[in-house]
Amino acid sequence: MKLSFMYSFLKSDIDVIERELEMAIRSNSSLLNDASLQFIQAGGKRIRPVFVLLSAKFGDYDIEKVKHVAVALELIHMASLVHDDVIDDAETRRGKKTIKAIHGNRIAMYTGDYIFARSLEYMSAIESEEAHKILAETIVEVCLGEVEQIKDKYVMDQHVKTYFRRIKRKTALLIAVSCQLGGIAAGASKNVHRNLWLYGYYVGMSYQIIDDILDFTATEKELGKPAGGDLLQGNITLPVLFAREDKEIAELLESIYEDMPKEQLEVVLEKIKNSDAIEKSYKVSQAYLQKALKVVDRLPDQKIKKTLKDIALYIGKRKS
Amino acid sequence: MKLSFMYSFLKSDIDVIERELEMAIRSNSSLLNDASLQFIQAGGKRIRPVFVLLSAKFGDYDIEKVKHVAVALELIHMASLVHDDVIDDAETRRGKKTIKAIHGNRIAMYTGDYIFARSLEYMSAIESEEAHKILAETIVEVCLGEVEQIKDKYVMDQHVKTYFRRIKRKTALLIAVSCQLGGIAAGASKNVHRNLWLYGYYVGMSYQIIDDILDFTATEKELGKPAGGDLLQGNITLPVLFAREDKEIAELLESIYEDMPKEQLEVVLEKIKNSDAIEKSYKVSQAYLQKALKVVDRLPDQKIKKTLKDIALYIGKRKS
Repeated sequence: MKLSFMYSFLKSDIDVIERELEMAIRSNSSLLNDASLQFIQAGGKRIRPVFVLLSAKFGDYDIEKVKHVAVALELIHMASLVHDDVIDDAETRRGKKTIKAIHGNRIAMYTGDYIFARSLEYMSAIESEEAHKILAETIVEVCLGEVEQIKDKYVMDQHVKTYFRRIKRKTALLIAVSCQLGGIAAGASKNVHRNLWLYGYYVGMSYQIIDDILDFTATEKELGKPAGGDLLQGNITLPVLFAREDKEIAELLESIYEDMPKEQLEVVLEKIKNSDAIEKSYKVSQAYLQKALKVVDRLPDQKIKKTLKDIALYIGKRKS
Repeated sequence: MKLSFMYSFLKSDIDVIERELEMAIRSNSSLLNDASLQFIQAGGKRIRPVFVLLSAKFGDYDIEKVKHVAVALELIHMASLVHDDVIDDAETRRGKKTIKAIHGNRIAMYTGDYIFARSLEYMSAIESEEAHKILAETIVEVCLGEVEQIKDKYVMDQHVKTYFRRIKRKTALLIAVSCQLGGIAAGASKNVHRNLWLYGYYVGMSYQIIDDILDFTATEKELGKPAGGDLLQGNITLPVLFAREDKEIAELLESIYEDMPKEQLEVVLEKIKNSDAIEKSYKVSQAYLQKALKVVDRLPDQKIKKTLKDIALYIGKRKS
């Protein structure tokens, strides 16, 4: 089953967002149009817009009102991806060439800035001062995380707390805020939009942990990029942190470096895959999902609650 | 005479901004603190905050209210400088090493993102929806300009209109918006804050043209970097566009390339300096200043009008 099945009732509204995203980045600059349109058309799960729309169902749902939030959040996410590709020297994303690969680092950096600037335009259509504050603080945290993650690279003996803080900033916060701002834009009460934040936070944590597991267990076809990329780039994820409890693996991990021979990396990847690190990581991910489900129980009685639960459960089982 | 003499009555308020700027970028990340604090302490003319404060005098001036605008605009400017240094491969700025030079491109890119994110926090304290819209649209234009300027590099036969649009986006818009938002934050009428925008726009255009002239005529000491840097980096400025009317210079210009021998560059620089291109560029700059002065006449009768005129006149004569 595909994720999008669970919110097929949102199909036409998601289409609105999709068209709006394409309009959002259009400009008189053909270079920018090429770079960013191609990026948008490469698709993506549009998870943040989906959470905005679902959360807005707890208030006075009006697609014309919430679409600005949904577009702004997806643009912020995209801008950060474009900059990440510069940092990671990534040649492909979702199986397609990155902006960085086609146009170089300079254009990629400014394209990221530009997409981010466009998100501000969409945000400025939102009247809630609270929403602006929340979003600004979140973006600061996300940026802090981006700098800190560079420092954490290849650091094998980092605390697991460092990892959790990193994925909170990298993934969970923006999903949490998507849920919260969806609620705020639809006029949901403070109690409701805070719980929506919490739901998004737990789902986001779980989502990223599974992403980090899949980087070990999924095939290149499923990932749209070679497996083991995280480790090769020095991105120390939860499976690695569990795996290093095994002394032999810990020693092997010390020998990881950028551009190391593929065969050598394969050995380490296999060891980690065959250790209990994957299972342990899954358990942590499941614990977050359970928390997400409990938060849903606290939300007001709405039909949409079932969808929120279904999505959380789906995320726990996803393969790509 | 120093520029700051003209607004010495703002001294204590500028100090407030300076302290606020330092607080603004503080975080738990020692890496980010190092990078951005050093950048802030390297100083700068703080032209945007000054224009915010001066313009706020046309309304209900309250430093506690306008400081958020002033800090936000200076942070946006700083963020763009940090990213520019990545693009320009700049090793020094104002005689000090750039973030890029000390920490590398990756940290510099994210530090720029971070400083920009902090500016959003300050902006979110501003209640005017109009201010948010104006700022968002301006930032989009500035980003468009950043991408376009890469395309314009080393293009010797570009239209002078391309140059004007480039410096509008690069410099004039943010100064114009500083004036306008200063007015809006202080509750000035629409007519007043639109004229403030126009004043800032003309002053900004003039300011940048003089900057571009000084890159030919000033000494390395005055500039804090070697003269002729613009040309070497393929940044085609007004003096170049006038100078290429001379056939001999036009031919020499075709031979400009990055990392060309210094002696060879010197020959071209000397030719341009000794042509009438500098004088012609000054005239254009003066024409913008005259327009700025005329706009001041249209503003309501306030003591501060004299300062706005003095600054415009000073900019026309500045040597660094």
